[in-house]
Amino acid sequence: MKENKIMDPFYVEISCENGNVSPPARLISRKLSDLVGLFYDQDAYNRALADDNPVLYEVYEVRVPEEEGHLLSCTTVIYPGKVGKEYYFTKGHFHVLENRAEIYTCLRGQGYLLMTTRAGKTHSIAMRPGISAYIPPYWSHRTLNCGEEPFIFYGVWPGDAGHDYESIVEQEFPLRVFEENGQPVVKIK
Amino acid sequence: MKENKIMDPFYVEISCENGNVSPPARLISRKLSDLVGLFYDQDAYNRALADDNPVLYEVYEVRVPEEEGHLLSCTTVIYPGKVGKEYYFTKGHFHVLENRAEIYTCLRGQGYLLMTTRAGKTHSIAMRPGISAYIPPYWSHRTLNCGEEPFIFYGVWPGDAGHDYESIVEQEFPLRVFEENGQPVVKIK
Repeated sequence: MKENKIMDPFYVEISCENGNVSPPARLISRKLSDLVGLFYDQDAYNRALADDNPVLYEVYEVRVPEEEGHLLSCTTVIYPGKVGKEYYFTKGHFHVLENRAEIYTCLRGQGYLLMTTRAGKTHSIAMRPGISAYIPPYWSHRTLNCGEEPFIFYGVWPGDAGHDYESIVEQEFPLRVFEENGQPVVKIK
Repeated sequence: MKENKIMDPFYVEISCENGNVSPPARLISRKLSDLVGLFYDQDAYNRALADDNPVLYEVYEVRVPEEEGHLLSCTTVIYPGKVGKEYYFTKGHFHVLENRAEIYTCLRGQGYLLMTTRAGKTHSIAMRPGISAYIPPYWSHRTLNCGEEPFIFYGVWPGDAGHDYESIVEQEFPLRVFEENGQPVVKIK
């Protein structure tokens, strides 16, 4: 590598309180309307959407080249709320390079990390501050907020991993978490 | 990938207070005697070593396969102290695959992240809780504690990166941080 092609180091500041990443971060904001077809109770979804189109979660991504050897990182803030009895969740994705891992570390709040393989194996991890979960290669992953405050976590993944959201839309995610008697309950399809 | 070869997800719990990583973590403990030849003031080093052989830092590494696609992670706890006027630091390393990045996020205390390229470019970042530093491909990296409590940070790097400590021993690290009038001062060789 020629010395003048080497990227310079930099830093960001991460807030555990609100998930903000001070520059340079790219904000991705997902509203209820961005998750069409993903919640279990379609009637509740349609009613909620007719009423309002709230932001379900926000992602603050630290920008580096999306290339082999680099590491992408972000904070994700999932707001508290439900569609019917199902907690707000992220779209979820496989990596395009499926043998790429990811690490999620909870900074604030209460949530779940849901994972599945192509063959339908499932795994869920309850997240609270200090819990750092390892998403091994080949597992898709979705997160949700089952608490009453923002659920915030910090993620790191390889720069060349890529996001495959389509597989999650095409094939229903086999794990769902509903509120039952005030408690989150994980259900396997 | 055959489904029965896919690794299962897991989690650890990270303490920001003392850096402990509850199982499964591998503890690496570095004493003063492990850093022979690295401090500026050799007389102060020899005097300190004759007196005692304290632990300068501890690393709690989350164990996953050291292979492409996986992500290694650890906490590092550097204890407060100096050799002469120079703050306790880590050995420092390049990656064996030099185009592999790393991310360090400060959990507690005050420190510095020092970086250099093979051609001698240097960069330093002052670390405090919430600061997340990006070590781009091709930069070696060393950290130090310039505060009065443990300096704790969380690191993530690609599974296939590898550690090259030898280059740092053979060629003096061009950045050093000394206490002057009670303040840390970064000096470039």
